[in-house]
Amino acid sequence: MSDELWKILDTTDLVDALPFLKVWVEKIELPDGRIVDDFYQVFVPDSVLIFARDTKDRVVVERAYRHALKRVSLILPAGGINQGEEPLTAARRELLEETGYSSDDWAELGTFQTNSNQGLGRVHMFEALGAQKTAQADSGDLEDIEVVLLSTDELEAVIRGGDMIAMSSVTASSLALNAWKPIRPGSEQRD
Amino acid sequence: MSDELWKILDTTDLVDALPFLKVWVEKIELPDGRIVDDFYQVFVPDSVLIFARDTKDRVVVERAYRHALKRVSLILPAGGINQGEEPLTAARRELLEETGYSSDDWAELGTFQTNSNQGLGRVHMFEALGAQKTAQADSGDLEDIEVVLLSTDELEAVIRGGDMIAMSSVTASSLALNAWKPIRPGSEQRD
Repeated sequence: MSDELWKILDTTDLVDALPFLKVWVEKIELPDGRIVDDFYQVFVPDSVLIFARDTKDRVVVERAYRHALKRVSLILPAGGINQGEEPLTAARRELLEETGYSSDDWAELGTFQTNSNQGLGRVHMFEALGAQKTAQADSGDLEDIEVVLLSTDELEAVIRGGDMIAMSSVTASSLALNAWKPIRPGSEQRD
Repeated sequence: MSDELWKILDTTDLVDALPFLKVWVEKIELPDGRIVDDFYQVFVPDSVLIFARDTKDRVVVERAYRHALKRVSLILPAGGINQGEEPLTAARRELLEETGYSSDDWAELGTFQTNSNQGLGRVHMFEALGAQKTAQADSGDLEDIEVVLLSTDELEAVIRGGDMIAMSSVTASSLALNAWKPIRPGSEQRD
């Protein structure tokens, strides 16, 4: 197996719709010399996603219409990163804006690439403990958001039952509820 | 909060590169009457992903170059679904083609939407137990694939250390290693 980078021989932009997305196609030379004429790449900006527990250990979940699903679904708070903003700062802001909750106890759950072939952006996932409602939610998002507080048992049942469909929400929930969850240095790491 | 579907007033195709992807932009009317001129959607075909344990409870992991990451990374076996193929059939085929392993003990871990705003395809995730090497791997994929067998402790350390970057691989691993993992009916459901 080869660790060599694929050689990009040519790039053709197909859609430039930043800040939402950018699509291009690459002509690639593989390490064995084969040529691939059409390897598509999609840039979607990085985002943040928050698994927050309140002071009663309930998880702060959102119920909102998701256009890709064409239905209302349960998801975790999430959103974009402003220019120059640190991911943790974006996570604090999005949690507050979308749910009105804030926390002083944050940790990282990991940063993951949505798709390792085509890209599609990375999601920075955080856990917040002891979250408290300190403001009215005011997301400015297109969707109406209803905040739902679920016990961890209820959240597990939601995932088990297939009622949480967005992959990033399931990833963060599963990692956060896992005994061996990865906690890597955040700006306020827990011991 | 409104359960109403968003109304799609207009659709403009931007990229038609099937079977790889399709990109379009929708003009949307929200339930409150607001108009959104540019809501982007990306169709990527559904795929399958397999968390397989061998007879010694080691997880069948792949080490391969991932072009979106521009590096070699650890991922779970995964691949596309042929036309008319059932997801479980595709999972069996991909596991065999990419790793040479097969199993008679399959269960579903869930089906998740890559991105609930823009779509980006769904991933059908499966678990296979007691997998055995029954053939030579012959994936036909662009990447050279090295099969690596990891204990569950080793896999947990890989995820904890940030060395498994592809979100779908982390999702399936975390669900499969979780005591409360969802197992919904597959064609050969376990008790």
